[in-house]
Amino acid sequence: MSSYAARRNALRRELQAANLDALLVTNLLNVRYLTGFTGSNAAVLVDADGDDTTVFCTDGRYLTQSARQVPDLERVVDRPCDTALARRAKGRLGFESHVVTVDGFDGLTAAAGRAELVKAGGFVEKLRLVKDEVEIEALRMACAAADRALAALIGHGGLRAGRTEREVARELESRMLDHGAEGPSFSSIVAFGANSAVPHHSPTDATLHVGDFIKLDFGALVDGYHSDMTRTLVLGKPADWQRDLYDLVARSQAAGRNALKPGVRVSGVDHASREVIEKAGHGEDFLHGLGHGVGLEIHEAPALSKAGAGTLSAGMAVTVEPGVYLPGRGGVRIEDTLVVRESGPELLTLTTKELVVV
Amino acid sequence: MSSYAARRNALRRELQAANLDALLVTNLLNVRYLTGFTGSNAAVLVDADGDDTTVFCTDGRYLTQSARQVPDLERVVDRPCDTALARRAKGRLGFESHVVTVDGFDGLTAAAGRAELVKAGGFVEKLRLVKDEVEIEALRMACAAADRALAALIGHGGLRAGRTEREVARELESRMLDHGAEGPSFSSIVAFGANSAVPHHSPTDATLHVGDFIKLDFGALVDGYHSDMTRTLVLGKPADWQRDLYDLVARSQAAGRNALKPGVRVSGVDHASREVIEKAGHGEDFLHGLGHGVGLEIHEAPALSKAGAGTLSAGMAVTVEPGVYLPGRGGVRIEDTLVVRESGPELLTLTTKELVVV
Repeated sequence: MSSYAARRNALRRELQAANLDALLVTNLLNVRYLTGFTGSNAAVLVDADGDDTTVFCTDGRYLTQSARQVPDLERVVDRPCDTALARRAKGRLGFESHVVTVDGFDGLTAAAGRAELVKAGGFVEKLRLVKDEVEIEALRMACAAADRALAALIGHGGLRAGRTEREVARELESRMLDHGAEGPSFSSIVAFGANSAVPHHSPTDATLHVGDFIKLDFGALVDGYHSDMTRTLVLGKPADWQRDLYDLVARSQAAGRNALKPGVRVSGVDHASREVIEKAGHGEDFLHGLGHGVGLEIHEAPALSKAGAGTLSAGMAVTVEPGVYLPGRGGVRIEDTLVVRESGPELLTLTTKELVVV
Repeated sequence: MSSYAARRNALRRELQAANLDALLVTNLLNVRYLTGFTGSNAAVLVDADGDDTTVFCTDGRYLTQSARQVPDLERVVDRPCDTALARRAKGRLGFESHVVTVDGFDGLTAAAGRAELVKAGGFVEKLRLVKDEVEIEALRMACAAADRALAALIGHGGLRAGRTEREVARELESRMLDHGAEGPSFSSIVAFGANSAVPHHSPTDATLHVGDFIKLDFGALVDGYHSDMTRTLVLGKPADWQRDLYDLVARSQAAGRNALKPGVRVSGVDHASREVIEKAGHGEDFLHGLGHGVGLEIHEAPALSKAGAGTLSAGMAVTVEPGVYLPGRGGVRIEDTLVVRESGPELLTLTTKELVVV
């Protein structure tokens, strides 16, 4: 059975538990997750009874592509897909109420006839929380593309005095493409010197100076899956305060990683990492959550934060990214992408977390 | 008055005509259009009475940025913004029913209290149809970045035998950044030889050969505005059939451009261009619409197609992009971005439409 068919079967168990006859999936990422289709217009009507009565829809632009990517489902070629599939539904029809707009709902209501529309938001996202091995392999390749791009950037002297943040961002993104990425998984953060104290700094024409922190937060996209990593380096000999700050964040990050275990509350992971920074008197300089899930989206559930609810499960892919930011001076963030495993967290980001001096 | 304040005033005339007391704008592109804010979370409650009672909302990450970009409106810092603003509404409150989800609507209903929620989808998009001069200047710069990137690609020998489609796409996109683009406005299409017969071909490792058509469909993003152009070149001496095909599409494209006048039906523009190709016996090889609006989105209204409804107005920015595709042999598309003007269409894409032989 393909991984897509296995995911549809897992979804069916949820539909049956909710007493739904079918789910109309219109979120394109969810369609991709359930079918492998990567085009820009599609929907799938997942019948609770099985794949024999499940129908995929796309439009005429994607005849060849959908035949190749979705060979195992009945196909409807129509536009728009949501109402085309709703017309075929019977009984209790779940729809993605977190995705379907108010106007879209009016269209579905007209098309669904006697089928009863039932709010069913988040069913597929709930499955997507736990990654299967096909997904983890895509994340592994995405992390590897980012690791290799950073190694090549450093190895080719890309981090030298006088270069701008923008130039470094472009080279980093270009090198990710060299190493198998379809693209960057988000707009890279490159921050030199005092700019490293801004958590989400956008690259500018500021130039790199000896003694600067170099904060690089970036990731690669492979097969639709997003990696996310941050490293903070120093150009030239680090000052004592830079070493101290780095060591603090590294200890916090290790504590967060080590707390990643199935059954642990997500707020507890945040706490384990944050406690290290708070005890050092820098609690107010760590302004954001500890991390987030990654997958078909760069930010997805679970949120690893103080206010986050729920517990970890084996197979969840998350980032761990504490940071301490000293306005006007500089900041350090260290971030890996990892998978929660019964046997302990599996690092997908393999670049060293020792302080790299270039 | 800033262009943003002028746009809000234009929106107010629509609200008053629809007897709405306010519009809750939650589509981020519409928020950007009305306020200039470029962050990833915001909403604006446009009061029909004026800016004094209009409220902008964002979250704590954007304190500095929103103070700079939206200095002229009362600001609420909260999360989520839609319900925070709905709580402040009174009377007949329009909402963007083409954007708000079914779950989101439940939240608005709870927050809005005694205000009456009224479906008001597409109000801002209707204004966005006609561009003001600030928008046209951004489009002009976006078109210039694409023009210059293509000139530099050709000038530096980027189109030579043996290069892959992927390599050319990367160089083209990199050169757009050199010429002021924030990024490509969509994934570039680079198609060599027979691949040029696929209208929306994604770049592959196929290599360029002497005698190939080279179809390049690409654009630049500047200040949030998207340009879109296509040129088809030949490497080495063109064959007679290539010249003939090129001349046919060039004549069709000129007919389409010349038909762009205020008051003309959009289907009539499509017809003017398509007729040239149909008369040459290639009607069935021109499979797509003639063009589309461009602006804050790469595809927006109006659609220039057979089935398109409505007429052109001065200030609309559109593409004109006929193509003829001969499966297994090759295809030609020629596309410009233009502005409809009373005095005749204004070309924003300035690259020659003569057949370029490299």
